[in-house]
Amino acid sequence: MAKDMTLLWGSGSPPCWKIQIALEEKDLQGYNSVMLSFQKMEHKSQQVLDMNPRGQLPSFKHGDRIINESIGACCYLENEFKSQGTKLLPDCGAAQARLYQRMFEGQTMLQKLADVLYYTWKVPEGERHDSAVKRNREALTAELQLWEGYLQKGPGPFLAGKDFTLADVTVFPNVAYLFHNGLCEKRYPNLAAYYNSLKNRPSIKTTWPPTWLENPQGQDVLKGI
Amino acid sequence: MAKDMTLLWGSGSPPCWKIQIALEEKDLQGYNSVMLSFQKMEHKSQQVLDMNPRGQLPSFKHGDRIINESIGACCYLENEFKSQGTKLLPDCGAAQARLYQRMFEGQTMLQKLADVLYYTWKVPEGERHDSAVKRNREALTAELQLWEGYLQKGPGPFLAGKDFTLADVTVFPNVAYLFHNGLCEKRYPNLAAYYNSLKNRPSIKTTWPPTWLENPQGQDVLKGI
Repeated sequence: MAKDMTLLWGSGSPPCWKIQIALEEKDLQGYNSVMLSFQKMEHKSQQVLDMNPRGQLPSFKHGDRIINESIGACCYLENEFKSQGTKLLPDCGAAQARLYQRMFEGQTMLQKLADVLYYTWKVPEGERHDSAVKRNREALTAELQLWEGYLQKGPGPFLAGKDFTLADVTVFPNVAYLFHNGLCEKRYPNLAAYYNSLKNRPSIKTTWPPTWLENPQGQDVLKGI
Repeated sequence: MAKDMTLLWGSGSPPCWKIQIALEEKDLQGYNSVMLSFQKMEHKSQQVLDMNPRGQLPSFKHGDRIINESIGACCYLENEFKSQGTKLLPDCGAAQARLYQRMFEGQTMLQKLADVLYYTWKVPEGERHDSAVKRNREALTAELQLWEGYLQKGPGPFLAGKDFTLADVTVFPNVAYLFHNGLCEKRYPNLAAYYNSLKNRPSIKTTWPPTWLENPQGQDVLKGI
């Protein structure tokens, strides 16, 4: 039981989901789990600001230790609970190298995805340009082609090789987010196979975003990517 | 000696510098160090593309293991050479929590810095707006105020507490980049004190960007921030 842990999170946010998966994998159930609403601007509430001056979700606390950065929290949990639950950092140096490369590249994938999905939300109306929209979509396409190649080349079945690691904890939510937003499984067969091979893993299924369960179809913003 | 390691890097690039500092701290001198020129577009050369499909620097290889993501490479080096050179990941859980929080927040600092410094390089002429420039500068100012607060609150003298850790390896180059581009030491006294306390550390001094030695003044883009 992890009663000395608190996670403030929002449904459907890949960074929040990363920590939720890590907590499950490390057998840290029973933490204080508080779902907040982005729509209601609850990420700017005092409860969040007390833990996170950026006013962002996730916000995570273990005792009086605060780690709001999602990948940082996952690394911390693996280090702090090494011998508990799934071993998420392999001993093998070659697998570690692949893990670190993919885990950090996953941040680039998420950034390029965000540039497409949140364009109208992030860019004020008078500053929007069709040429920028087109460029962002092309950048995401090129990014996803890279990942198709990585997954095809392997070694799989996981991102760092034969074991489920921190790379999967941190990149899977990005991949799920892609498909939830309409990415075509046929056009990205390797990403789709990876997605489908993991979506029923207990740590992932248990923490599946509740708003996605209510609305499984999602948007189709990425349909043409 | 680290003859089985190769680092392709560009002078003045904070991500490249992170790996150079990590290598020094871990006593991994003697690696194959190849300085390339961004101006001459050498980061798009075949030599780079063979190691890094993104055509970016740094590109780093240990034997046949490739980790181009700079923080990933630093984490890998610490894990692979735990008992060699400086211990960059403390045993203390509280210090680890601070380390991971600051190390990943450092990426946000660098992103906001890049949004200001590279605006005209990244945004095509017809898409530029003074309002975006102003917003980016305000975002960087707010970001740096956060760091002023972190450094004031401590515990110092390093980012994660009493020891020099991966947080310093990965964030110091960003801070140096700020001051090289004209950030006012008086307006950011805590960042300036941190910068000045570390700039002569052997691992940092030895790897100081050669183009900065030639041109210590740098630009003054951040003068008014």
